[in-house]
Amino acid sequence: MKKFLEKYNILENEKVIIACSGWVDSMFLLSEILKVKNEKDIIIAHFNHKLRWNESDKDEEFVKNYCKKNNLIFEVKDEDIAGIALSKKIWIEEAARIERYKFLRKIKEKYSAKYIIVAHHLDDKIETFLLNLIRWTKLKWLISIEEKNDDILRPLLSLSKKEIKEKALINKVSWREDKSNLDDKFLRNNIRLNILPLFEEINPTYKKSFENIMSYMWDIKIYFDEQISKIIIDNEFFEIETFNNLPDFLQREVIRYVFEIANSWTIGLSEGNIKEVIKFINDKWNYTKKEIKKLSLFKKNWKIYLM
Amino acid sequence: MKKFLEKYNILENEKVIIACSGWVDSMFLLSEILKVKNEKDIIIAHFNHKLRWNESDKDEEFVKNYCKKNNLIFEVKDEDIAGIALSKKIWIEEAARIERYKFLRKIKEKYSAKYIIVAHHLDDKIETFLLNLIRWTKLKWLISIEEKNDDILRPLLSLSKKEIKEKALINKVSWREDKSNLDDKFLRNNIRLNILPLFEEINPTYKKSFENIMSYMWDIKIYFDEQISKIIIDNEFFEIETFNNLPDFLQREVIRYVFEIANSWTIGLSEGNIKEVIKFINDKWNYTKKEIKKLSLFKKNWKIYLM
Repeated sequence: MKKFLEKYNILENEKVIIACSGWVDSMFLLSEILKVKNEKDIIIAHFNHKLRWNESDKDEEFVKNYCKKNNLIFEVKDEDIAGIALSKKIWIEEAARIERYKFLRKIKEKYSAKYIIVAHHLDDKIETFLLNLIRWTKLKWLISIEEKNDDILRPLLSLSKKEIKEKALINKVSWREDKSNLDDKFLRNNIRLNILPLFEEINPTYKKSFENIMSYMWDIKIYFDEQISKIIIDNEFFEIETFNNLPDFLQREVIRYVFEIANSWTIGLSEGNIKEVIKFINDKWNYTKKEIKKLSLFKKNWKIYLM
Repeated sequence: MKKFLEKYNILENEKVIIACSGWVDSMFLLSEILKVKNEKDIIIAHFNHKLRWNESDKDEEFVKNYCKKNNLIFEVKDEDIAGIALSKKIWIEEAARIERYKFLRKIKEKYSAKYIIVAHHLDDKIETFLLNLIRWTKLKWLISIEEKNDDILRPLLSLSKKEIKEKALINKVSWREDKSNLDDKFLRNNIRLNILPLFEEINPTYKKSFENIMSYMWDIKIYFDEQISKIIIDNEFFEIETFNNLPDFLQREVIRYVFEIANSWTIGLSEGNIKEVIKFINDKWNYTKKEIKKLSLFKKNWKIYLM
């Protein structure tokens, strides 16, 4: 954990926000951070989703008491997630994620912390991978949980839930059992309880396979990001000649990339759209404009400017 | 189908071998090929795995009768696959695959045919993808079923089983039901019967998602194969300077590539091995050799030769 904090340049007196449910993952995370950081710089943020009746309140009580005993700053927010999901017509999980991060970012502001640390682990990563694989047709990359994402850090990502539990037992960490895991009405729990055990039957070490392929795909993503950043000068324009000298696949990746940042990564381009853009880039007209959804390209002096 | 045969330059009088089980996929494939090719150039190869007692023999009988009625050349082989698997200590599916292709290649020789055409479809492709994802830690690429692989052609790869059945009904194709599909003692059937229906519950169009990601990964594979073939001159050597100018990821891919062809793609290199090879490439000694498993590299005049 010391190395991890050093890696992200978290100084000795710097405050960190820890998202803490009271369950084994976050209690283990907290115990590891307590080994290397001063209590006064740790802010515990507990979000009560009010989804499991008094179980939710018992979780809150547990974390609150733990903080009192260990002299940790405790912040809490209760929110009726089921109600919000209903009124916004979104999935409960989606609503929970949005509201939780809203709360965490507010606490981060309040204490001028640099990072929010969460206890996501390898099982979460595999579930997300599989969920994205099944659910999305517009699929940029399958790996969506990474060690660092803006101001969110995830130090436990290479450990499975089982490994975390074992370590927590050895370290005499106390925690509350996560009751919602026994309920498969949510998508993610459906994967966890019904699908992944079947994978484990086929290969008891399937998590290792998933981890390998996810990290390989991440390497590929980094590679392409680097190549593209060399092509798009100052994130502002690229030379038509440079573009035309690229292999086909990289040309398409450049177009996908600029389109997706223009559209906040929410939608993807069809093959037809990509062809259309390539035609625009190579037609003989200068000083012309091309718009596809929120992407505007402007051609000037054999350069393509992103607007 | 006409376009497909043209794409692979299969001439009018050229013979093709069709692997035919008697089930809907291969009967539909056969009916499509019969629309565009002369009966005398079609050789039906039926492999009887003897795995489902008299059902296997009924399948054989069905295909044999169909060929008789339609003036098609019929070739058959009966093989006790369960026995072979037992004596070779391999999975039944593995034994079936090996013996089936042995037979198909022999028939191909006998009739001097250029290609063997098989009825693999989108469901097979998804099952293979998922099986590889779960089972392998050494994972080059997840997509292992492609339209063309040496002398094997697969014209139905973009159709799902359901689509094939619908088309077969419309075209009044006759077929035998595949009884082994109702038996989940085999790995692939476990995926088909137990896992994929759960995916379908989460997203009824999950097959489309899988197809998208598989074809995207295939594009990535082609891209890297092309980049690597530019670096390794005549498949014989690469320049150390060229190698050192590559991005990190591409350096590792080059090393993986030469290692894996030397070892017939059966094993992968660890990160430690890769570092070792990079160290060898950049050390100051000339005329030295490096061996890792079946890969031999020889350094001469600032080039690395593959032995």
